Amino acid sequence: MKKSIFYHAGCPVCVSAEQDIVGLIGERNVEIVHLGEDKSRITEAEKTGIKSVPALVTPAGHVLHINFGASMADVKG
Amino acid sequence: MKKSIFYHAGCPVCVSAEQDIVGLIGERNVEIVHLGEDKSRITEAEKTGIKSVPALVTPAGHVLHINFGASMADVKG
Repeated sequence: MKKSIFYHAGCPVCVSAEQDIVGLIGERNVEIVHLGEDKSRITEAEKTGIKSVPALVTPAGHVLHINFGASMADVKG
Repeated sequence: MKKSIFYHAGCPVCVSAEQDIVGLIGERNVEIVHLGEDKSRITEAEKTGIKSVPALVTPAGHVLHINFGASMADVKG
């Protein structure tokens, strides 16, 4: 199965959601991307349709915004 | 594994998210509750901390609000 991608920015809401998502779908099925540490991937995240983090992109390319930690504007600083 | 519970209200955002969640974690691992059709479970959902639908409650009892379809006030009508 193609991996999902979980984008976050290290915020408390993000960390909690990451643990829940990894628990639900399994660590090997999801790539974790920390946009605060890897700013080169912010453009990719925005192109996918991500407006805030944490967010999960499914293998089909659908964006699931999960709770609300920070807007992409905040992530870009 | 204890099941997750996916609460929704039949809105387009809900239906799309339901398909994604079922695809990710597997139909047998999640109970689907349509709050519009089963209003007796609205109180349970609110007690768990659900503010809007669609939302997923993990086996640990954590609430993941996924995208935004409708507020609980809208669901209650």
